[in-house]
Amino acid sequence: MSSKANYDLTETFEYLVELLDAEKFSEVDQFLKQEHPADIADLLEMLDDAHRLKVFESLHLNVAAEVLDEARTDTLQELVEALSDDKLADLLEVMPSDDAAEILSEIDEEQAEAIIALMTPAEAIEVEKLLAYEEDTAGRLMATNIVRLVKDWTIAQTLEYLRSIDLSVETLAYLYVVDTEGKLVGIIPIWKLLTAQPQEQLARIMQTSVITVTVDTDQEEVARVVSQYDFFAVPVVDTNGKLMGIVTHDDVIDVINDEFTEDAQRFGGSQPLEGSYFSTPVWTMVRKRVGWLLLLFLTAQFTTSIMGIFQSDLETVVALSFFVPLLIGTGGNAGSQMTATMIRAVAMNEVRFEDTWRVVGREFLTGAWLGLLMAVASFGLSAAWGNTPHLAVTLALALFVVVIWANLMGVMLPITAARVKIDPTVISGPVMSTLVDATGLLIYFMLARLILAEI
Amino acid sequence: MSSKANYDLTETFEYLVELLDAEKFSEVDQFLKQEHPADIADLLEMLDDAHRLKVFESLHLNVAAEVLDEARTDTLQELVEALSDDKLADLLEVMPSDDAAEILSEIDEEQAEAIIALMTPAEAIEVEKLLAYEEDTAGRLMATNIVRLVKDWTIAQTLEYLRSIDLSVETLAYLYVVDTEGKLVGIIPIWKLLTAQPQEQLARIMQTSVITVTVDTDQEEVARVVSQYDFFAVPVVDTNGKLMGIVTHDDVIDVINDEFTEDAQRFGGSQPLEGSYFSTPVWTMVRKRVGWLLLLFLTAQFTTSIMGIFQSDLETVVALSFFVPLLIGTGGNAGSQMTATMIRAVAMNEVRFEDTWRVVGREFLTGAWLGLLMAVASFGLSAAWGNTPHLAVTLALALFVVVIWANLMGVMLPITAARVKIDPTVISGPVMSTLVDATGLLIYFMLARLILAEI
Repeated sequence: MSSKANYDLTETFEYLVELLDAEKFSEVDQFLKQEHPADIADLLEMLDDAHRLKVFESLHLNVAAEVLDEARTDTLQELVEALSDDKLADLLEVMPSDDAAEILSEIDEEQAEAIIALMTPAEAIEVEKLLAYEEDTAGRLMATNIVRLVKDWTIAQTLEYLRSIDLSVETLAYLYVVDTEGKLVGIIPIWKLLTAQPQEQLARIMQTSVITVTVDTDQEEVARVVSQYDFFAVPVVDTNGKLMGIVTHDDVIDVINDEFTEDAQRFGGSQPLEGSYFSTPVWTMVRKRVGWLLLLFLTAQFTTSIMGIFQSDLETVVALSFFVPLLIGTGGNAGSQMTATMIRAVAMNEVRFEDTWRVVGREFLTGAWLGLLMAVASFGLSAAWGNTPHLAVTLALALFVVVIWANLMGVMLPITAARVKIDPTVISGPVMSTLVDATGLLIYFMLARLILAEI
Repeated sequence: MSSKANYDLTETFEYLVELLDAEKFSEVDQFLKQEHPADIADLLEMLDDAHRLKVFESLHLNVAAEVLDEARTDTLQELVEALSDDKLADLLEVMPSDDAAEILSEIDEEQAEAIIALMTPAEAIEVEKLLAYEEDTAGRLMATNIVRLVKDWTIAQTLEYLRSIDLSVETLAYLYVVDTEGKLVGIIPIWKLLTAQPQEQLARIMQTSVITVTVDTDQEEVARVVSQYDFFAVPVVDTNGKLMGIVTHDDVIDVINDEFTEDAQRFGGSQPLEGSYFSTPVWTMVRKRVGWLLLLFLTAQFTTSIMGIFQSDLETVVALSFFVPLLIGTGGNAGSQMTATMIRAVAMNEVRFEDTWRVVGREFLTGAWLGLLMAVASFGLSAAWGNTPHLAVTLALALFVVVIWANLMGVMLPITAARVKIDPTVISGPVMSTLVDATGLLIYFMLARLILAEI
């Protein structure tokens, strides 16, 4: 028994490096035998290139395969470059075919083909079939080595069959029943076999109402189905209903994590990266970011135009400009708070398009409260700065209006985006601030002209 | 078989409303029998109050319990208010005790106690035990109705035992072996029982190296363990190693989803909400947001101070102020892009503190490229605005420096936060923009003074 809660690899890593530096390789072997492959993968990432290869090559083939499967993209790529194609073919053959296909899709295409050519024909065909499905679909993600049972079999026949084959880990919780054409006709939780009578037919105990996805279902949709129905795994069928594989809960967790990373990057205002941080070259990072940066830069011209339009006011009351960053910053912050909350509420289906008016009502109120509090705070500030009463009123009123306005934009934009089937995360923090900057300035200067005209 | 990929509830909902409006209640019953409880929960959320209660009361007790478990907080609270305590006690009794405890923790405390008093003593004790654990720990999340086997048993004895009890869904994939004191000593994947010899002892086929968490492990750490090791479930033990329950993959997916919602809200610049959007009162929303908004508002005073310090420059060249929103906006955007990417890279363990210098090197380069591109774009802008060459150079140079600077802050702040064990998401988009606003202005005006002094 070992608790891995709050497990910090750093100590393990330091001990490993000590052993390696002292060239105590048999102790390294002993030591690694006690570690989980997922943790070995993390340790490899922390090691330098020479040590990494040495440790990896010392692993038993099955463990090495699991480690390779768990390694993050950049470590994987480095290992693949350093190993021979023969060794890689051996490693991929001991993996489930979906994991092998995933690794092959992450490395150089030419090398991938060379490796496939070295695999046994049966494995090679299996892997190529998976690679033929489009990226990010259920077909790419599914495990194909599942147990298929025939519905006319009795429990006794089924048990005999199960004893004759190599039961793999992916098949654990459910067994799948197919007809003569391979079409899925039912599923059986494996524990039912333990308690059923030997002469009973599968058709009598199987569950026939099964929720499935198809091979071309997008992986995020697969994740949604598995989360919605609390599935251990979801069966994947082709257009004819033929059972092709299953997508299991652990793949779904990976998809959800990747999806969050993409959402966060999009929300930060870049296009999502395809690989992990270090496996993405600098120039790709620049490409992923420059589009939005430039678009927002051009949109921000409106701020310059608006400042230009109100040049005379700025010349008369130069202090007016002092509060520009503060005002548009506060508006942007309020908008960013709202849009982040709304994007998640929409993603989790807590808020639907039908709820728009209810949300607008709530957020008008929230915005008004927040705006009021900021306005009150600004009077304290104005006193400290020795602003004229007119300027103090202008600033307070502008804050009040801009916070309400930013809050409502933060509601409407994500809901509208979702309605027209655009990912609401395009309404990123930067998009919000840029839009609030321009409109906020307009509100500020118009209020200023109204109020200061009375001087 | 039914594919639920891209399943849109709207049509189903409209059909249901049609049936309800026509008062065809037996057809409603028929119709709902074909729907999954998770989908029924979604449909209930979309219905108005009167219809919701009518539909819920028409459900079979077991289905109703599952629906209640799947309902989001605000719908749950409305149903709980409308139903009698007796009915609620009945519903909670047919649920697994962890689900019952979760629901009780989401409703009014007094009512929860009243309901517990109406439950059977055995169930009430079980639920109260779970509620005694702290919120957001493994103890709160775990299922307790698991199968415990004794290690001296043979397969035949085990099978006999399993046939004598009611096997529930939570126990599906693994069986847990304990010693006489209830300590976890091993686990057995259930399929092994199918293929093992009847006279074999459990002790011989069980896996004894088991990764566990303890009852007080934080739920996010539980989620990390389950994701890291691709577990179906993780056993939860007390400080003596006694097996208390298991946390399953579906609970982990819920934790990950909640966690991401919290991260998004924090990244947007608010404190995370405890409940769903609609179940959070307006005043709570205001409280969750006003803290950061006010803190950033006060921090933004520096921008006002800096503008004040350079008042004479602003009076000489009023056009200098026109570009303030554009410049600090672009810096804020670059910083927000970087910090979002970095927060996820740190969360997914792709970037560790040891990598700091490597990351800084990369991001200096990325920042320089992005800064250069923005600077070039700004010359086009300056031509369009008819800026003086001096002003054009000032603006371009300021953009170049500010983008690099913002990019580096976007790297350093999340890494440093993680290092000192602060959640890196506190470096939200709004925090980044506010910090970049102040420092960016300083860079801009100092460059302006240097360059424009030569006029």
